[in-house]
Amino acid sequence: MNHRPVSTVGKSTNIAWHECPVGRLDRQKLLGQKGCVIWITGLSGSGKSTLACALSRELYSRGCLSYVLDGDNVRHGLNKDLSFKPEDRAENIRRIGEVAKLFADAGIICIASLISPYRRDRDACRALLPEDTFIEVFMNMPLEVCEARDVKGLYKLARAGKIKGFTGIDDPYEPPSNCEILIQQKDGLCPSPAAMADQVILYLDRNGFLQG
Amino acid sequence: MNHRPVSTVGKSTNIAWHECPVGRLDRQKLLGQKGCVIWITGLSGSGKSTLACALSRELYSRGCLSYVLDGDNVRHGLNKDLSFKPEDRAENIRRIGEVAKLFADAGIICIASLISPYRRDRDACRALLPEDTFIEVFMNMPLEVCEARDVKGLYKLARAGKIKGFTGIDDPYEPPSNCEILIQQKDGLCPSPAAMADQVILYLDRNGFLQG
Repeated sequence: MNHRPVSTVGKSTNIAWHECPVGRLDRQKLLGQKGCVIWITGLSGSGKSTLACALSRELYSRGCLSYVLDGDNVRHGLNKDLSFKPEDRAENIRRIGEVAKLFADAGIICIASLISPYRRDRDACRALLPEDTFIEVFMNMPLEVCEARDVKGLYKLARAGKIKGFTGIDDPYEPPSNCEILIQQKDGLCPSPAAMADQVILYLDRNGFLQG
Repeated sequence: MNHRPVSTVGKSTNIAWHECPVGRLDRQKLLGQKGCVIWITGLSGSGKSTLACALSRELYSRGCLSYVLDGDNVRHGLNKDLSFKPEDRAENIRRIGEVAKLFADAGIICIASLISPYRRDRDACRALLPEDTFIEVFMNMPLEVCEARDVKGLYKLARAGKIKGFTGIDDPYEPPSNCEILIQQKDGLCPSPAAMADQVILYLDRNGFLQG
């Protein structure tokens, strides 16, 4: 009898790869769109969740299926065993990258919204995805703007020393060197949620993601 | 200024919940189906992957979007840090349950295919999902049949003592006490892949999952 080949991956021994007859291209045809990961990175308060929601609404109005993986939300479930210490932050991002990859493979426009402050973690996620399907969106808002918003009251706590290792205050944010989309102020004004979403939609449209 | 409330979940401190304007019901309407998790459990060689693939093909032919989470495949990515020791097997199942929950929330018919030998682990995944959206499929095939197939050659290794803790050989399989769908032999014959898939499709159709 022919045995399916088994191998070792990481700590998993004796595992095989099962290929199903319905694949990514079939699902994309069914949905009339192409799966990808829109990775929104930036400081707390820079507007990541706002963009994610505006974008999912705009995509929905065009009949496109998207799904938002929000860093905070995923910590309520899949990643609730992880803290904010450095190795756990890296693992948090790795797992979200792996899940985003599955969603993109399912044909979905997956919108991942998380601070993801270190370039190496984001680049590791990029490396998981087929070429050109990892779309990095950098929310390039000045720290003063984010801190003035302080939607969750976290900057105040960080300034008071009650949160340690807070990105932008006592932990660095490394801006992307090669992001696909840059969101920033114009003439000292922040773009509206709709304007930010349109900027991403334009990119998706021009690059063929909105058709199967 | 009103601060968004933050809380602690597991080891994650200061996290908030972001609700997006496009929700599960909207996505289901777009797809014309209802999201759910079809959890296929059974011995190695019992036909889990075969059913998963036949089911995804049949759903596709009806214009339904499904996605297969295969226990082995996920160990190539999200769960490659996990071994087969008991606590890692439990964590493997927990993570797949959490990811399946996200897929169901996205409106997708998520087909999870993994041995998942312990009742408590499967029930923990069931508890994650909204009521009636966790559909447990028990591949009730005799050990002799599975061992005779030995698609991956693992039973032989387990009998030779080269794999320890192999389900059915030196580690128990706990059959579900309340599965939604039971797949089994009839008159000593195993059902064909198409017949198994039809049995699940019938359940989905009768319970309204194939319409939005």
